[in-house]
Amino acid sequence: MEQDIRQYDRIIMGIDPGTNVMGYGVLGVNGKKPEVIVMGVIKLNRFESHYLRLNKIYERVSGLVAQYLPDELAIEAPFFGKNVQSMLKLGRAQGVAMAAALSRDIPIAEYAPLSIKQAVTGSGAASKEQVANMLKHILKIPEEKMPHLLDATDALAAALTHFYETGKPAIAKGPKSWADFLAKNPDRIAPRRK
Amino acid sequence: MEQDIRQYDRIIMGIDPGTNVMGYGVLGVNGKKPEVIVMGVIKLNRFESHYLRLNKIYERVSGLVAQYLPDELAIEAPFFGKNVQSMLKLGRAQGVAMAAALSRDIPIAEYAPLSIKQAVTGSGAASKEQVANMLKHILKIPEEKMPHLLDATDALAAALTHFYETGKPAIAKGPKSWADFLAKNPDRIAPRRK
Repeated sequence: MEQDIRQYDRIIMGIDPGTNVMGYGVLGVNGKKPEVIVMGVIKLNRFESHYLRLNKIYERVSGLVAQYLPDELAIEAPFFGKNVQSMLKLGRAQGVAMAAALSRDIPIAEYAPLSIKQAVTGSGAASKEQVANMLKHILKIPEEKMPHLLDATDALAAALTHFYETGKPAIAKGPKSWADFLAKNPDRIAPRRK
Repeated sequence: MEQDIRQYDRIIMGIDPGTNVMGYGVLGVNGKKPEVIVMGVIKLNRFESHYLRLNKIYERVSGLVAQYLPDELAIEAPFFGKNVQSMLKLGRAQGVAMAAALSRDIPIAEYAPLSIKQAVTGSGAASKEQVANMLKHILKIPEEKMPHLLDATDALAAALTHFYETGKPAIAKGPKSWADFLAKNPDRIAPRRK
């Protein structure tokens, strides 16, 4: 799945930061066609210390950023959690991952899990397996290259959601008013009679 | 308050990371005597964007670390908060500050606000003003060098707490057992009669 990244117009890195397992997925885009460059997970539960885990996240995300030179970073970010303690830990994991991107001036976008499921499968209630299957279909990922851990496909889904969200042409929203329409379409103004 | 940092045996940086104002304070230690090298605040509330704030924290903490080369970082870290959203934001602020230290392999220690107040003033119920006054007294800070914002003294208090906590001699706890005592004091073993 490792391609020469110089062939892409745009590279989007997706991250699903967790304190036990962190997923990552990198999309390369040529024109309007996104494809998978790499995806995987960073297992953190073998590290006892909270700081060792944070350090590992920072190191690995910095390494991925240096290797794949993403233009943007998309993060899967839940806005609600079980309790304040778990949210503080999650915030720290997100913070160190973000710092790795911020230190290289890479813009960050975050998407709630529901928005990602909605964007990829059309349903906010989709399971992680359904998200993975849809990605396999959309991005034409061969069966043998599908990851065992769904944190990787979740991260890739964040990257794809960002691609969809940023690829929406502004014109699709339509002109705000007649004045706006005419300003954008001067040739549609009928010449006034003199 | 800016001294030549090469004169110190050990440098401890304290940080009070918040999403509106971040305080920092650097202590230099010679032997058992701590003194203030610098303290101040990073005002974040003039930045609208959450990412700009995180970027600013990362940049400034990285800058302070590069300038003062601390041996250790002490963070004031509340473990409880109003709600999950504010804890997530606080966790991110702590995460980017920690990343700046982790990227240079600087060990991090965190202290709850109550432990810091307890260590500096002797009372966990002390006010921020009382903490500031006690620091002024302990570290002999001239009135004109006291900061206007108490986030700076809070950060310095975290550094001082770390100095106290790590300076505690292990012997003060006493030997764990007679076997332990005798192993440490072989000269206290009476020679056996043959």
